[in-house]
Amino acid sequence: MVAFQGELGAFTHDAIYKLAGRRIPLLPLASFHDVFEALQTGKAGFAAVPIENTLHGSVHENYDHLLEFNFHVIGETSLRISHQLIALPGTRWRDVRRVFSHPVALNQCRMFFRKYPHLEAVPFYDTAGSVKMLREEQPAQAAAIASQTAAAIYGGAILRRGIEDDRRNFTRFFLLSKKNTVGKRTRAPWKTSLVFSMPNTPGSLFRAMACFALRDLNLTKIESRPLRGKPWEYLFYVDFWGAITDAAVRNALANLAELTDSLKVLGCYQPTP
Amino acid sequence: MVAFQGELGAFTHDAIYKLAGRRIPLLPLASFHDVFEALQTGKAGFAAVPIENTLHGSVHENYDHLLEFNFHVIGETSLRISHQLIALPGTRWRDVRRVFSHPVALNQCRMFFRKYPHLEAVPFYDTAGSVKMLREEQPAQAAAIASQTAAAIYGGAILRRGIEDDRRNFTRFFLLSKKNTVGKRTRAPWKTSLVFSMPNTPGSLFRAMACFALRDLNLTKIESRPLRGKPWEYLFYVDFWGAITDAAVRNALANLAELTDSLKVLGCYQPTP
Repeated sequence: MVAFQGELGAFTHDAIYKLAGRRIPLLPLASFHDVFEALQTGKAGFAAVPIENTLHGSVHENYDHLLEFNFHVIGETSLRISHQLIALPGTRWRDVRRVFSHPVALNQCRMFFRKYPHLEAVPFYDTAGSVKMLREEQPAQAAAIASQTAAAIYGGAILRRGIEDDRRNFTRFFLLSKKNTVGKRTRAPWKTSLVFSMPNTPGSLFRAMACFALRDLNLTKIESRPLRGKPWEYLFYVDFWGAITDAAVRNALANLAELTDSLKVLGCYQPTP
Repeated sequence: MVAFQGELGAFTHDAIYKLAGRRIPLLPLASFHDVFEALQTGKAGFAAVPIENTLHGSVHENYDHLLEFNFHVIGETSLRISHQLIALPGTRWRDVRRVFSHPVALNQCRMFFRKYPHLEAVPFYDTAGSVKMLREEQPAQAAAIASQTAAAIYGGAILRRGIEDDRRNFTRFFLLSKKNTVGKRTRAPWKTSLVFSMPNTPGSLFRAMACFALRDLNLTKIESRPLRGKPWEYLFYVDFWGAITDAAVRNALANLAELTDSLKVLGCYQPTP
């Protein structure tokens, strides 16, 4: 069972297809916090969460949950966010007047609405949920904006494909588990994600980077996040190529632990392309 | 005139109060792109945009616009995002059944809705816009979630204050202008923001950091962002204490230019506390 935030057919649902296949049972939940709770209590054996988006940045809320709970990141993938105009079978394109979706999705299709000014964008709480609503309430002259998977799940017909303004909209997802899987697979290269905190004195970050540079370890992400209430303290998110079982990585982490106030390895995983 | 995205009473409106005072005329627009266009065409002399949030991360869309347009960041401030339950005067708390707001705001008040399960959360396209709608359409038994400023502007009464779940929700804003103001004020310390790109080879970021560390310049932000379509190329966002007029800063930037593929100074400004 994989817990995730949103309705069936949400973009995270597609990420789970990539990360864990199409046969694993799913547990859709209302909030990210509920998703972490479900993994904690054992209601789900896995959880999938978005961690960053190419337009909207890192999802700090999920980094916070990763620090609060003691889970392992065991998988990673990226997904292009492509929006489809979906209606119930029988609804013709020329009959559509109202288009339901989450405001963030509506806003990502501004050029579409500019091109068809007779369409009214109607805010709804969820993208996939708006297709589900079409199915349940059958409002007249209505369509929804959501993923291809949402259309398939709720039996919607796609009237217009790829109506998003920006094709460079990608979301990166983590697959989480209570159990560590390091060392169980070997074909692909490993990536490690960590979070550490340190006082932000001149050169402190430079010394932290030296732990990796001295060992030729290549960073794929670095991000500082100010700690609220502690004006000179920062959290740093770092991802790099390497497995925790490599000697160079173990040495780098031991070195880093000397410099940081706290250091947490979120997980070590093989990215799914 | 200050251009910004959203309705009057949006959180950016409050940020403008802090950055430019309460007397400057405002130009509310539908999208961030419209805001940058308004500054470009001279419809507005200034623009204010959110650049990062403590829960939701950096607003990469606005970094993209900053790279596309040649404006200067001339001011910076942070604002705590606090949500108020607002109704028309005369609507009593015990009569409220439906609560309108942007889904992101509704989602930030989950504990409030859990405490009062008789309230229905109704998605709307904008926080301040939902108060404006109460005023214009006067729906029965309705309230909205928005800022204190939205209540003041549209003549709403605040029924419940500070109903957000998380008090650590802050947004950081930039004030933009076509003209550079460096050197015009002197009391407070200066901060400089830049974006650069470089190939992500082992140690490349380390060498970039050395440009600052060698000159005791203190970073307040560093963030990598993968460039889509260029798997090994990254954009880096860096903020640090110092003015472009300081010799150490000029030397650091000259040094950095040797290492990077592109380097753009977004601006040099004195933060407003």
